[in-house]
Amino acid sequence: MESRAVYRTRIFDLHHHRRHHHRRGHHDFYVLNAPDWINIIPLTEDGNVVMVRQFRHGTEDFTLEIPGGMVDPEDPSPMHAARREMREESGYDSDDIIELGKVHPNPAIQGNYCHTFLARGVRPGPKIELDTTEETEVILVPLASIKDLIKSGEITHALVIAAFSFLHAYNPPPEFRRGGAHR
Amino acid sequence: MESRAVYRTRIFDLHHHRRHHHRRGHHDFYVLNAPDWINIIPLTEDGNVVMVRQFRHGTEDFTLEIPGGMVDPEDPSPMHAARREMREESGYDSDDIIELGKVHPNPAIQGNYCHTFLARGVRPGPKIELDTTEETEVILVPLASIKDLIKSGEITHALVIAAFSFLHAYNPPPEFRRGGAHR
Repeated sequence: MESRAVYRTRIFDLHHHRRHHHRRGHHDFYVLNAPDWINIIPLTEDGNVVMVRQFRHGTEDFTLEIPGGMVDPEDPSPMHAARREMREESGYDSDDIIELGKVHPNPAIQGNYCHTFLARGVRPGPKIELDTTEETEVILVPLASIKDLIKSGEITHALVIAAFSFLHAYNPPPEFRRGGAHR
Repeated sequence: MESRAVYRTRIFDLHHHRRHHHRRGHHDFYVLNAPDWINIIPLTEDGNVVMVRQFRHGTEDFTLEIPGGMVDPEDPSPMHAARREMREESGYDSDDIIELGKVHPNPAIQGNYCHTFLARGVRPGPKIELDTTEETEVILVPLASIKDLIKSGEITHALVIAAFSFLHAYNPPPEFRRGGAHR
């Protein structure tokens, strides 16, 4: 396979791949090379999710999301990156963090993973350090209303929905299984 | 906002956006312009999901997915596109199709939606018409095993997980609600 970078940006590089198939000849593919991503569900003791309302330039609209971002080269682990992004974007923090799962955001054109975490018992930290390119607002949303917000289309980000789906259906921690207190 | 296409491919165009903020100055953003996407859960009468094992060039590995693809200009609706892709990729068909929901694959860098459908009572059609750039294998997977396949990491595609999450948790049709026969 031949591969070359055809365009580089701050958050991904676009690569062109040319593959040779013994019967089908040449095919061209385009792949976005990016570091792994993370997102994290920050949950307060009283059952609220700390969410971020944020302007997104892909949709040119505001979205309701959980904190998320890239694993930076300085991050010793995806979990560390998740805690860092949670602090930076929401101002909340906790050291009680577990991994819920990981997904491929789009295996057709990206090789990276998005790792998903749950932070329990989060509390407001000393200060919110917002990235200067982000216009964000922190909102507390009852966990009990998340299912309706996904069904109604208030939450549309596929990676956020995938994150909650681990909590609700695919890998719920013991306290979220049927009959659990916070379900 | 200034916007210009900096690279064009068969499945998306890469656009560069420059925005002016009254306090923060200039910021550059990159957006992938693509048509809406669809995916569809083809379910047989006896409770199997018709899935596709497929080589994906982003991950350079095989994935286990449901049929999906782009809404073509010739498709009169996303639902039509979903039925077309189901026929082309799996060889199965049904006219009993409902919409489960729609998501933004990645609002940070894409504006398009992925529309998700459920096809009930699918049956094998006359012939499978594979796209010549796809190396695919059709596999019947019991719906009852999907949750475990997501939890165990056999199914990793975020848009496929989002699709199943509508069925399992966020917008289940009546027969899939608690106590339903196929749950």
